[in-house]
Amino acid sequence: MFYVIGLGLCDEKDITVRGLEAVKGCSRVYLEAYTSILMVQKERLEEFYGKQLILADRDMVETESDAILRDAEKDDVALLVVGDPFGATTHTDIILRARSLRIPTRVIHNASIMNAIGACGLQLYNFGQTVSLVFFTDTWKPDSFYDRIKENSDLGMHTLVLLDIKVKEQSEENLARGRKIYEPARYMSIPQAVSQLLEIEDSRKSGILDPDRTLAVAVSRVGGGDGNERIVAGSLAELKATPVDAFGQPLHSLVIVGKRLHHLEAEYAETFAVDAQSWREVARRVYECNFD
Amino acid sequence: MFYVIGLGLCDEKDITVRGLEAVKGCSRVYLEAYTSILMVQKERLEEFYGKQLILADRDMVETESDAILRDAEKDDVALLVVGDPFGATTHTDIILRARSLRIPTRVIHNASIMNAIGACGLQLYNFGQTVSLVFFTDTWKPDSFYDRIKENSDLGMHTLVLLDIKVKEQSEENLARGRKIYEPARYMSIPQAVSQLLEIEDSRKSGILDPDRTLAVAVSRVGGGDGNERIVAGSLAELKATPVDAFGQPLHSLVIVGKRLHHLEAEYAETFAVDAQSWREVARRVYECNFD
Repeated sequence: MFYVIGLGLCDEKDITVRGLEAVKGCSRVYLEAYTSILMVQKERLEEFYGKQLILADRDMVETESDAILRDAEKDDVALLVVGDPFGATTHTDIILRARSLRIPTRVIHNASIMNAIGACGLQLYNFGQTVSLVFFTDTWKPDSFYDRIKENSDLGMHTLVLLDIKVKEQSEENLARGRKIYEPARYMSIPQAVSQLLEIEDSRKSGILDPDRTLAVAVSRVGGGDGNERIVAGSLAELKATPVDAFGQPLHSLVIVGKRLHHLEAEYAETFAVDAQSWREVARRVYECNFD
Repeated sequence: MFYVIGLGLCDEKDITVRGLEAVKGCSRVYLEAYTSILMVQKERLEEFYGKQLILADRDMVETESDAILRDAEKDDVALLVVGDPFGATTHTDIILRARSLRIPTRVIHNASIMNAIGACGLQLYNFGQTVSLVFFTDTWKPDSFYDRIKENSDLGMHTLVLLDIKVKEQSEENLARGRKIYEPARYMSIPQAVSQLLEIEDSRKSGILDPDRTLAVAVSRVGGGDGNERIVAGSLAELKATPVDAFGQPLHSLVIVGKRLHHLEAEYAETFAVDAQSWREVARRVYECNFD
């Protein structure tokens, strides 16, 4: 059997009981370390599972799937994935490959940011398509995300924006020389994300992202409990002006609030507001929330 | 501490290790039995947790939240919820209530249909807003879901359609006489859902739902493993003509495939197709998927 097992969002205890049982019965266990970022070290997972883990980076899952799947028709093999297994395309690839080799497969689901984002108080039913925001450079500012946010915005829907991370990046020099030396990991912060959003708004001028009239909710480490999870709500201008530390540790995500905002959603999110009075004022005036 | 703990999608082993630890430490544990339907009996959960569970129906969670929250500022109390705690509005209500009573709260996330639907091979990024489809009667055929599907469809996005269930329904006579006698639970089947969708298309005539040209994927008991999980893909006409048994046990959900369908999504879903050749033909011709 080939298992693809979601680890959930935070640490070693977010695996399901079913997932843990499967891990304990496997002869090889791979830990995928690229589609997202673990909040715990590999060693802590190994201790908890009582198993050695084999790190599988992007190259390996994409190009060495047959090595991962070796003997899985008779032994149990698992690939562990942060969040849920269906967050990234690569897992459907390896499952298709397993099927073509007639290896039985089983997916063990878990929470991912795609559903846990409900923790901010905005209803999942009211979200449109999800977008990713990559680090801009001086010469490369891909802005197709803006069209997606506009499509959602025109329908009044919320947009989940996933912020870029850079891991295993090589400097141009190291890349040119073929040296596998990697830069420190970089995570986009909420103020930086808001700056990039407003930069594109400035050039596109559709009026969907307004510093003072567009509400947003920033989340990090959802489900991580006190001291880890942070949810911060405010106008884009307020979030941009908030010190980076207030948003907690990466990974960060941002929700652009759509105009269909219901007053119960606004009330729940208000508990996370930088300035509750200003949040409610914008929700009432711009989003036409009726709090009475 | 007041915990709201997601149980995931299938049975007692889908709780997370963190969730299980919390349950074991609680002095009272409520099991919410209405926003969705458990696939296992309460007794099986009780045996697994080594705890008695108190059933909390809709009335109780909505009107007796203070009874549920009693003493939670000093004891640990949990509310168990099928799927993830943020699938239904009611849980934000009780969390807000706990906060207003200054009771510390913690949410323990899990998979829900809102992210596990990725198991059908369609990318979560490409989903628009989610809709619910209720049982039509002769005189009541609410069709606002159609506007939402059209909004998604116009943008090429997929739509997750959650099918109605009726539990604790009373007959008109029993309701009139105030007798708490309930009808057997009813679950909308996939063919019935497709019939209702096409009935509204017939009256609205936007052309977004075509029996032969619109593809859809039906899922049931996602994550339930062999013998439980069923995924069936086909045109609306094919799904309507498929015997009910082929769709497995309830709960059922349906995805209306949007025009942005990528050929990799189509290829993955094709493994679940009623007729793989016809699936690929429609994907190529109508959805303009390029499989080469």
